[in-house]
Amino acid sequence: MTYCIGLRLNKGLVFMSDTRTNAGVDNISMFQKMFTWSKPGECAITLLTAGNLATTQSVVSILDERTKAYSDREPSIIEQPSMFQVARLVGETLKEVIALNADTGQKASTAFNATIILGGQVKGGEPRLFLIYPEGNFVEASKDTPFFQIGETKYGRPIIVRAYDADMSFEDAVKLMLVSFDSTIKANLSVGLPLDLLVYENEQFEFSHQHRIDADDSYFNTISSGWGDALRKAFHSLPNFKFK
Amino acid sequence: MTYCIGLRLNKGLVFMSDTRTNAGVDNISMFQKMFTWSKPGECAITLLTAGNLATTQSVVSILDERTKAYSDREPSIIEQPSMFQVARLVGETLKEVIALNADTGQKASTAFNATIILGGQVKGGEPRLFLIYPEGNFVEASKDTPFFQIGETKYGRPIIVRAYDADMSFEDAVKLMLVSFDSTIKANLSVGLPLDLLVYENEQFEFSHQHRIDADDSYFNTISSGWGDALRKAFHSLPNFKFK
Repeated sequence: MTYCIGLRLNKGLVFMSDTRTNAGVDNISMFQKMFTWSKPGECAITLLTAGNLATTQSVVSILDERTKAYSDREPSIIEQPSMFQVARLVGETLKEVIALNADTGQKASTAFNATIILGGQVKGGEPRLFLIYPEGNFVEASKDTPFFQIGETKYGRPIIVRAYDADMSFEDAVKLMLVSFDSTIKANLSVGLPLDLLVYENEQFEFSHQHRIDADDSYFNTISSGWGDALRKAFHSLPNFKFK
Repeated sequence: MTYCIGLRLNKGLVFMSDTRTNAGVDNISMFQKMFTWSKPGECAITLLTAGNLATTQSVVSILDERTKAYSDREPSIIEQPSMFQVARLVGETLKEVIALNADTGQKASTAFNATIILGGQVKGGEPRLFLIYPEGNFVEASKDTPFFQIGETKYGRPIIVRAYDADMSFEDAVKLMLVSFDSTIKANLSVGLPLDLLVYENEQFEFSHQHRIDADDSYFNTISSGWGDALRKAFHSLPNFKFK
């Protein structure tokens, strides 16, 4: 499993992903699930992936190849005129890779499906956030639904629903995501540290912050232990129940 | 879907279940999922059910029939010498019902599986709490894992993990369960009000409290709106993140 969040704020976009992949509980590995492309002053794009690792790595490799020098490697993800076109390119690539695997002679018991969060900004347009399905189609985040989660989404959802605010600072958004990840990591062995964090500030066309939060990160550990106490306090602050 | 919790406290047992069943989002109904049997001074037993409704109703009907007058209706759930024997009886009944449906000529696309939380006390033994699987086998709650959830368990799990305390009062346990249910109901349409609440106090051999919490219950609504504020306060009470 996996857990990734993409959050749309008024100031920009914030992303976080875990790095654990597993095929059974006794076969776990660490793989990055966050990928970025940028062309300073022109565009900054990121993908967060969940699902079959062979599928998502293949999608990223194909997109990556296309950004290399050779002029015949078209279409390039960093040469698209809009985020909508980027989403179409990623969606089509994803759909093709899945179709290719599904058609091979070898049959696997697992599905080759994958889901992708796409975010970023292309010059001339707004920063945008998309959720791309294995079928290649996609939906965009809006004011009503300003964030997307993929993978093991349930444990960490209630706190985002309650504490998200479009006007929040990047720092608060990171704190919120860490709380959400902490609840998930505590409940599900298939989501694990380290976490990758990425921040995009509107109209910068490059990522402002990108860093990895390891198991020994002191801030994460403060949040992890502090959240238990904070939750218990919150719980006790509610009015008491009385039997009638 | 469904959401049910069974909680083991030092003072006794507390149970809560929702009442929504659905076959698709356009075919929802209200059905009780909590069933009780008791023989004053001898035993008090409850079942909470999740899964195929035909299966769980059939299990309860069979167990119910067996508690009726006719002496040939054996074994009776209220005549078992221990909670372990009650768990075996329920487990066997569940397994039989599932096997019976699985063998019919008619094939359905859905599974006939169901899972059951069983709790109560039989004179001469301790109050006990079990989780019974579709295969008829079961596990018992312990100090390490003092509660069971069935159905849509993920959204409401983090708060129970963090705020549960074996020494808590029945009132606090009800408050905790309502917070857990509120998070789940807000996130998943297949879990819905009203909720059934049941309390068993050690050595009473009858249930102390059993009541239904409707959508217009003022305490539930206080918890539901108050929890959002309390969570936001808890979130803001954590130390702030700083980019390095």
